[in-house]
Amino acid sequence: MEGPLYQRIAEDLRRRIARGDLPVGSPLPSESQLCEEWAASRGPVRQALSALRAEGLIGGGRGRPPIVRTSQVPQPFQTLLSFSRWARSLGRTPGQRTLEIARRPARQEVADALAIDEGDFVVELVRLRLLDDRPTMVERTTFVESVGRLLLSFDFDPDKRSIYAYLADQGVDLSVARHVFDAVAADPTDASLLEIPEGAPLLRERRRAGSASGEPYEYSDDRYRPDVVTFTIENAEQAHPSVARAWRPAPTGSL
Amino acid sequence: MEGPLYQRIAEDLRRRIARGDLPVGSPLPSESQLCEEWAASRGPVRQALSALRAEGLIGGGRGRPPIVRTSQVPQPFQTLLSFSRWARSLGRTPGQRTLEIARRPARQEVADALAIDEGDFVVELVRLRLLDDRPTMVERTTFVESVGRLLLSFDFDPDKRSIYAYLADQGVDLSVARHVFDAVAADPTDASLLEIPEGAPLLRERRRAGSASGEPYEYSDDRYRPDVVTFTIENAEQAHPSVARAWRPAPTGSL
Repeated sequence: MEGPLYQRIAEDLRRRIARGDLPVGSPLPSESQLCEEWAASRGPVRQALSALRAEGLIGGGRGRPPIVRTSQVPQPFQTLLSFSRWARSLGRTPGQRTLEIARRPARQEVADALAIDEGDFVVELVRLRLLDDRPTMVERTTFVESVGRLLLSFDFDPDKRSIYAYLADQGVDLSVARHVFDAVAADPTDASLLEIPEGAPLLRERRRAGSASGEPYEYSDDRYRPDVVTFTIENAEQAHPSVARAWRPAPTGSL
Repeated sequence: MEGPLYQRIAEDLRRRIARGDLPVGSPLPSESQLCEEWAASRGPVRQALSALRAEGLIGGGRGRPPIVRTSQVPQPFQTLLSFSRWARSLGRTPGQRTLEIARRPARQEVADALAIDEGDFVVELVRLRLLDDRPTMVERTTFVESVGRLLLSFDFDPDKRSIYAYLADQGVDLSVARHVFDAVAADPTDASLLEIPEGAPLLRERRRAGSASGEPYEYSDDRYRPDVVTFTIENAEQAHPSVARAWRPAPTGSL
């Protein structure tokens, strides 16, 4: 891994927390131990601990050994597009049930997002996404027809490659995306698939992805169980923000 | 404004849309008009239009004049911390009602976020935030005591400066923040303040802000009406993501 020392220390600790080598409730190695382990001074070690604290991974007062609070680990931004790639980057197992794939005329909202005319044909895909067999997200994705057509011969087995890897192989340039976050109440379909009550709050991500030159190929409405997934943004003055989709492990006692 | 030509064109169009010079439903100037106006070639004009399309500001099929769909304009990242600064950057009027300011012992969740001990004193502030007199967000903010103490002499009139500007003047370094997004059901307080039914879905932002060296000063739980505010992330391969809090104008017919 590249980047400053404190980031490498933080990344290593995240990995140990995510893997359960440092389980929830256990203390982290002391500052002195970490300094020795990394041949580092206190500065980078404290910066690393501070990053983990900001992420909510560790807690505990100043001067006392930090305790692992959760194993939710934020991920690099490249994994924001592909659910299955993201899941695997966390060491989790992605799953999916394809509920519908259909070629149909575009509704107004979709036509606007894809810069096509209302009524132009599109390919719509509805999938339930799972994380370690746990219902996590309902994904309603629409592709422009030229791209969607390629999916008719796609094998949706998530053990194989993601749709995005497949489309890239087919020469489709999906390299720019915009994500809009809000909250919606679960509709009857969401409720039944995600095993939650109708009306329960869901974190919604609407995503538009396309080519570097701005041609849109995909529009998606993804609805997450907020007890399983959050999205996080880190920012600092004079620095670029970083963004991650983050997994929330099952609360103790549930599942 | 700095940056490439297409960004300046896009920024100018956003401003005209936000101000209502280009109202919802109206067509944009044609590509040729924009080329002439900016002494630009088609390339940057199309890139600018593509950016606005990605933001959902304009719609319309290829080859037809784009139509303004919404006046929701994304904002630069610096405005992510301060609600009142953000509102003013949009040309909207921020408002607030302070519901409570209290010095009390920290709960576990807050203590972890602020890296203090449970029971250490903190200053908690509950405010309803308004945009053009419209209830928009319930903000529950906790400050470590050394910072919160400064607020006891603060004038909460949002026509004056923001808390963040005031704290900066007092020498408090708030330059790093982390924002975690999920969705929650409105509790009775949220429902009454935001004028929505109890249980309605809210977009929640939990924010932790502190010094450049990672010392946390502030932890906040902000709950937005998702019909008024969204958060957006733009990303591209090989580029840094950009993030904005975005305002949704009232749907036609409501308010």
